[in-house]
Amino acid sequence: MWQVDESNLEAIAIGAGILGTGGGGNPYIGQLRAKQAIKEHGPVTVLSPEELPENSQVICVGGIGAPTVGIEKVRDIQSYHALRAIEEYTGKKATALISNEIGGSNSVEPMIPAAMTGLPVVDADGMGRAFPEYHLKTFFVYGVPWCPMALCDEKGNTVIIPEAISAQWVERIARSVTVQMGCVACYALAPMTAQQVKTTAVLGTLSLAYNVGQAVLDARERQEDAIGAILAACPGKVLFTGKVVDLDRRTAAGFARGSVTIDGLGSNAGSRMVLEFQNENLIARHDSEITCTVPDLICVVDTDRGEPITTELMRYGFRVTVLGFPAPQLWTSDKALAVAGPRAFGYDVDFSPLVLS
Amino acid sequence: MWQVDESNLEAIAIGAGILGTGGGGNPYIGQLRAKQAIKEHGPVTVLSPEELPENSQVICVGGIGAPTVGIEKVRDIQSYHALRAIEEYTGKKATALISNEIGGSNSVEPMIPAAMTGLPVVDADGMGRAFPEYHLKTFFVYGVPWCPMALCDEKGNTVIIPEAISAQWVERIARSVTVQMGCVACYALAPMTAQQVKTTAVLGTLSLAYNVGQAVLDARERQEDAIGAILAACPGKVLFTGKVVDLDRRTAAGFARGSVTIDGLGSNAGSRMVLEFQNENLIARHDSEITCTVPDLICVVDTDRGEPITTELMRYGFRVTVLGFPAPQLWTSDKALAVAGPRAFGYDVDFSPLVLS
Repeated sequence: MWQVDESNLEAIAIGAGILGTGGGGNPYIGQLRAKQAIKEHGPVTVLSPEELPENSQVICVGGIGAPTVGIEKVRDIQSYHALRAIEEYTGKKATALISNEIGGSNSVEPMIPAAMTGLPVVDADGMGRAFPEYHLKTFFVYGVPWCPMALCDEKGNTVIIPEAISAQWVERIARSVTVQMGCVACYALAPMTAQQVKTTAVLGTLSLAYNVGQAVLDARERQEDAIGAILAACPGKVLFTGKVVDLDRRTAAGFARGSVTIDGLGSNAGSRMVLEFQNENLIARHDSEITCTVPDLICVVDTDRGEPITTELMRYGFRVTVLGFPAPQLWTSDKALAVAGPRAFGYDVDFSPLVLS
Repeated sequence: MWQVDESNLEAIAIGAGILGTGGGGNPYIGQLRAKQAIKEHGPVTVLSPEELPENSQVICVGGIGAPTVGIEKVRDIQSYHALRAIEEYTGKKATALISNEIGGSNSVEPMIPAAMTGLPVVDADGMGRAFPEYHLKTFFVYGVPWCPMALCDEKGNTVIIPEAISAQWVERIARSVTVQMGCVACYALAPMTAQQVKTTAVLGTLSLAYNVGQAVLDARERQEDAIGAILAACPGKVLFTGKVVDLDRRTAAGFARGSVTIDGLGSNAGSRMVLEFQNENLIARHDSEITCTVPDLICVVDTDRGEPITTELMRYGFRVTVLGFPAPQLWTSDKALAVAGPRAFGYDVDFSPLVLS
């Protein structure tokens, strides 16, 4: 058990920004919103999954929409409204909250209703990274029902999906509603049991985000190598180092889609990396060779400061380092890869796990 | 109290096709579906609003989508599922059903769940015509809440909108979900009381549809003038007679939108009428002059047989008569015109009620 307060939110936001593989919503804005809620209502208790009582009702809350829109149209307390809407619909009160994804602002989205209600959050999430679509959660791959869910906007509109033939259909319906809601909304799932969390969530990810972020902050303080500090906190490798020379990004169908081209610097001089993204980075091509794919994590950070660079903030001229981290093990089974492997995103390539040298 | 059975469905479908002002879903397909349900489950009892018990729970069911899609993708029993979904959500069982609009297939949509469940239908509806959008109901203009509502597709997906800031927002959200559902879905509203039906519905419209349709059938049988028979059954006037010479129709944003151009024949020779439609006919221009607008009814029938011609079946070369009927009185108040007058559809013109000579 530990606490999230104003002092450690920055580290969590940086770590979640890195683990977010470019998406999950802007981590800085998420941090400011969570900080405000904690300032008003007090700190949030974090429970490890083992600390969850048997009879827990764990509600997952998260944001849905296009990160490019989310930086201008900042979320309010829609996740609180979504929490209340699903509690009312199911007739079950939450005893704890859990993040849908550890990436970007979604990592701290539950802090806002948690601070408001005094509920603890669980040190775990449904992705162990960020993913662009609702159905891409380990929860659903391993048997948690994808319905009912509640979706709220900032205006006062609520939608409940009590029944859908697949998690993909929930995504499809919820995405189209989100577009109407202005491309920024929040949702809440029906309560999970402690057992479901333990067997279907990616565990310990809030601590991991904190550790990665704190390593970056420490390295900056000591004027040490931020990239090395990240890799020491979370095993992974440098995929590429260079300068952003081209960016193609559009807000389409409720997503930020596109690609970024990076020309090599240092040991990568003379070669090029192209990352393709849909909110999150999905594929890394080093010259003509694919060197990393979903569900492995492809993370772009500022080479000097280790600051995560999300897809909506990517810009020409940035000096960046592309990091690769192995996917959480729950994503590497055949049934998980069928949902979130490269072929699920339309790439005609098999998943080849990142090898750490 | 009377009964809808296989013998009088054709008349209802023809009458509702005419009152549907071009929309409401294909009346012939609606008739076939209702006939099938009645054949399987038995006839449906029609109650006049005065016959409704005090403690009634009247649930409105209807179809939503683009008529152009609806003729290829025929509805199944989604309205039954929507009825059950809203009953379950509200915890209230229906004691009677009511049509959302008397136009087209929507006039008989309640017959399907009514036949399946043995519930009666009320001789009334929420428009007294057809309209393209969810919020355009006299129910809502006169105080019936627009939420909660349930929306179902044929695949097994259900969406509930428990709360929305306006009826227009329900339309906006429901329409986007309908597009995902394949442009054809059915919905059900939370139960209304008998008092709400009596004060906010357009009354006696199922009887009116039957009377108009039967008049057409009788005229055909006797080889009499079908147009005259229609006008004798429902006071209105001939706006134009001619031949369809141009048609611009597209399925856009979940609607059938466009215009039809009719060159005059007989006493209208040398002049031209253009009708603009969004599922339903909204504006009639006789040469440069607007001669009829929503909420008055602009109805196109085959000149010889009096058969209604809906916007999705309109074709070049058809010999047609354009009829105008005064809007039900509930639509002529200022607050109703603000919702469904010509300006609400983007036309810079005031409503000028049709004058019957």
